[in-house]
Amino acid sequence: MKKSIGARPIVYPTPVFVIGTYDKAGKPNVMTAAWAGICCSSPPCVSVSLRKATYTYGNIMEQRGFTISIPSQDHLKEADYFGMVSGKKEDKFSATGLTPVKSELVNAPYVKEFSLVLECKVIHTYEIGLHTQFVGEILDIKAEEAVVGEDGLPNIEKVKPFLYVPEHRIYYGVGEFLGKAYSVGKAVQGT
Amino acid sequence: MKKSIGARPIVYPTPVFVIGTYDKAGKPNVMTAAWAGICCSSPPCVSVSLRKATYTYGNIMEQRGFTISIPSQDHLKEADYFGMVSGKKEDKFSATGLTPVKSELVNAPYVKEFSLVLECKVIHTYEIGLHTQFVGEILDIKAEEAVVGEDGLPNIEKVKPFLYVPEHRIYYGVGEFLGKAYSVGKAVQGT
Repeated sequence: MKKSIGARPIVYPTPVFVIGTYDKAGKPNVMTAAWAGICCSSPPCVSVSLRKATYTYGNIMEQRGFTISIPSQDHLKEADYFGMVSGKKEDKFSATGLTPVKSELVNAPYVKEFSLVLECKVIHTYEIGLHTQFVGEILDIKAEEAVVGEDGLPNIEKVKPFLYVPEHRIYYGVGEFLGKAYSVGKAVQGT
Repeated sequence: MKKSIGARPIVYPTPVFVIGTYDKAGKPNVMTAAWAGICCSSPPCVSVSLRKATYTYGNIMEQRGFTISIPSQDHLKEADYFGMVSGKKEDKFSATGLTPVKSELVNAPYVKEFSLVLECKVIHTYEIGLHTQFVGEILDIKAEEAVVGEDGLPNIEKVKPFLYVPEHRIYYGVGEFLGKAYSVGKAVQGT
């Protein structure tokens, strides 16, 4: 028997992305965002929704580009901190000791110490409600060699990303390998 | 040292959502989608990107509503199957033995056996590229009583959702609790 939970923004899993931008003066900033995900395969695009009140919102409107640095469990506290304070008041790179690196493709910084980074050019801006959705074309992904497998792709077990649970506001890790897509479902087709 | 991986649609984690719709004749259909996520808090909205070639695309354009049933690890093979075949050719509910239930809020069915369900009304349709993005306002979430905690919210450890790894096309479970958001980051602020 199902019961009503109400109209709430809950889905599982929800990502934890660290959005990198420069302000007008060239100061690098990062904030954590969870209302985000891939939204197109060709061109490859990712969407990130932000409130207008954030410093990052203004920076993206100005620069038309951003990065996504995907934190590993090893940087849980830094990623959480990036979502707790505003870049209007704090220099988050200085506070954490992490290093901003300027993207060569967009005018935005990424976090050097994070192993997986997307460089995104804004191609659409959509007003949805409290949040504005930016659609960024993924111009390139850069990964630390240590997390790249023999197939040339990042390995999720080496990247060790984590996920956010809305409403409960807690973090969970990624668990165990369960199976191959477009494959385990053949058990149904065969019936 | 970071190396270029190329322009690809990769982020971690990526969700596995089962999208429920009716066609013109009222036949229930489900498909699996991973290019999706929460995109606004108020009104609570979720975005789902689909190719025009899918049966679900036409159904949503017709009905202006859809459901998202979040599969648990226990239904891994059914969720994978839902992404392998088209509703144009197959009756996926019959093939899996799962049960369509008509939403009382939108003209779309959800999967009775899946413990967490969102009922969504389309409020925006955005053309991005190969994929069209539907923004659905979450009118209600319904959850099996067995997965709802004492706080009235679904418990992710009971829902047991899983995630999709793009490009590798594999599934992973949700791992262990790591910490509280807006809390573990205080360790940085205190420094």
